[in-house]
Amino acid sequence: MSTVASPAGDDDRLARVALSRLTEPGEPKIASLVAQLGAVRLRELLSDPERDTPESRDVASRLSSVDPVRELEQAHRLGIRYLVPGDDEWPTQLDDLHRSETLDHRGGPPLGLWVAGPTRLDRLGGAVAIVGARSATTYGADIAASIAGGLVRAGHPVVSGAAFGIDQAAHRGALAVEGATVAVLACGADRSYPSAHHELLQHLRRTSAVVAEVPPGCAPMRGRFLSRNRLIAALTRATVVVEAAARSGALSTAGWATRLNRAVMGVPGPATSAQSEGVHDLIRSGAATLVTRAEEVLEIVGVSGEHLVTPRRAPSRRRDRLPPRDGRVLDAVPLTSPRPVDSIAATAGMALLDVQARLRRLERDGLVELLPRGWCLTAEANQ
Amino acid sequence: MSTVASPAGDDDRLARVALSRLTEPGEPKIASLVAQLGAVRLRELLSDPERDTPESRDVASRLSSVDPVRELEQAHRLGIRYLVPGDDEWPTQLDDLHRSETLDHRGGPPLGLWVAGPTRLDRLGGAVAIVGARSATTYGADIAASIAGGLVRAGHPVVSGAAFGIDQAAHRGALAVEGATVAVLACGADRSYPSAHHELLQHLRRTSAVVAEVPPGCAPMRGRFLSRNRLIAALTRATVVVEAAARSGALSTAGWATRLNRAVMGVPGPATSAQSEGVHDLIRSGAATLVTRAEEVLEIVGVSGEHLVTPRRAPSRRRDRLPPRDGRVLDAVPLTSPRPVDSIAATAGMALLDVQARLRRLERDGLVELLPRGWCLTAEANQ
Repeated sequence: MSTVASPAGDDDRLARVALSRLTEPGEPKIASLVAQLGAVRLRELLSDPERDTPESRDVASRLSSVDPVRELEQAHRLGIRYLVPGDDEWPTQLDDLHRSETLDHRGGPPLGLWVAGPTRLDRLGGAVAIVGARSATTYGADIAASIAGGLVRAGHPVVSGAAFGIDQAAHRGALAVEGATVAVLACGADRSYPSAHHELLQHLRRTSAVVAEVPPGCAPMRGRFLSRNRLIAALTRATVVVEAAARSGALSTAGWATRLNRAVMGVPGPATSAQSEGVHDLIRSGAATLVTRAEEVLEIVGVSGEHLVTPRRAPSRRRDRLPPRDGRVLDAVPLTSPRPVDSIAATAGMALLDVQARLRRLERDGLVELLPRGWCLTAEANQ
Repeated sequence: MSTVASPAGDDDRLARVALSRLTEPGEPKIASLVAQLGAVRLRELLSDPERDTPESRDVASRLSSVDPVRELEQAHRLGIRYLVPGDDEWPTQLDDLHRSETLDHRGGPPLGLWVAGPTRLDRLGGAVAIVGARSATTYGADIAASIAGGLVRAGHPVVSGAAFGIDQAAHRGALAVEGATVAVLACGADRSYPSAHHELLQHLRRTSAVVAEVPPGCAPMRGRFLSRNRLIAALTRATVVVEAAARSGALSTAGWATRLNRAVMGVPGPATSAQSEGVHDLIRSGAATLVTRAEEVLEIVGVSGEHLVTPRRAPSRRRDRLPPRDGRVLDAVPLTSPRPVDSIAATAGMALLDVQARLRRLERDGLVELLPRGWCLTAEANQ
């Protein structure tokens, strides 16, 4: 796959670089015009310096000041490639962003993606987003790391942001088992925001991938976080929200996942935890499915039958494996004050001799005991 | 309402007392025969000492040994009344136990109910069951008490068992606000099981109600706990499970509530808590709705519009109340490295002078600040 387009070839790629300097991510007007006219034709139209309004002339002058070839060369020197639709590596699941539900929310498809790192984005088909609060609790961070580890072990890459809290914990959990974990940034793929995560992001650039919609060098801005969230949702098959307060940005990612028909899952926390309020609201309203561990996530994202959750049940008790009539006798034996066999037979509605024989068998199994005043359940039977 | 039937009158009541000595709670054969023939006729038929099989003759002899009048008199001396269908105080919601879904699970309607305490059972139409683990955590116990308190304050009585853990916490929470809270026992209404809850049960007998399906003096037995659970579900409009391990008896109450078309709710806990596993499974499978506080329970059990949950949202931020074009400017101001006004105008796609005016207004509002190298968001705007 070419990373720097030759000036004569790849006009579409160059046009997209130029247009991406004009507009903020997800702008539906541009997405819709690119879909109708193609990036090359749109760039030509907008570059006409003779256009009618001052605004149009301003656009034309800004377009003329962009040198896409130079931008691609600079990115290449930073180890960053620019992917556009049609590239082998293009993650085609982003085509879902053409839906009107997402266009209506300023969620058009990206013109292209700037990528640093060896993980190929066309291999993210089974990826799962793990997102949540920046001010996560240690409980939330531990769960995020544990779920991320379980997912990558099962072959599902993780996608998240690069924020403090859940994002960071998800990457950490995936890296701990040497899995692929992709950070999608609201700034350029070369920048480290927050700066405390510089080392983490450098590590991801070496071993997985760091992805951005805005060109290298661009600053993180509030609007870009919101549009970045749509990419996290669109790149993945499902979004897991681990902790999120009532207005957390993670809820916006969940909203995008819903609009894009992706599965949304939420990890519960204590009902009293403000950091879990947003997740509880999602689950309560039916927007998210409750999950508590990686296996349950896999059951939802896996190809049918690929991941089977082993129900995490208490071991079956000996009394559950009794013949039905033994169980009926056992049910008639009191928990506390002992009862004689005839009283037990009356309660069970069974013959005296039959009940006596069964009591003796239950006694050998350690489920009942004969005390001076009659039969009683053992501590073991009463667990 | 009569509590001791006169020997000449109330034959139905006396027949039910006699039959209740023959059979364990919920026995569908008896329930179905009583529904077809009436209790009086069934008692007559079963009392015939000339019947054909040894088992029938045993039943007849057991029936003849019961003296219902004496039993009612003894109960009366213990402060216990016996309610039967047709009594003014009969909780008619128990009629739902005639459904085949419950009969199939050994869940027929009770022949009658033994009741100690001033709370009238016909006033439990809006009651809510709060059930859960015996080995509850302090977290679970606190939530159970808090939800119980909120429910009784809103006029919804609480119904539970009398076990350690969640049952006890629910009663305690209701009593703390002097609300009605009813214990349904698996033993006689005069008995205190577990014995550590003798004081609690005595208090309920004085101020609310203690209810049993088995006659006074009867011991708690395993089968009776299961059939008792159906009464807790059937007496109430909804069941809230606070903590429940994977095989908790509280899940059986939830199962009854589902079969009876009652609402089932679950309070989440940490995903790592074994005591919340059963609740999480209920929520995850869609069998229960996630709730975190009394208001959310009331929203589900209340008469439509009676209880409106005030969404527990973070306070709206100043920037959410900005005019749209001010918001667009704010979105174009970087979080970190300052940018000059022309760069912000280009990003916002707005005219330079307009952007400058809006930046000044945002500065007065404390959302942006002008540094030597340009504009930047303030800490407040970046919350």
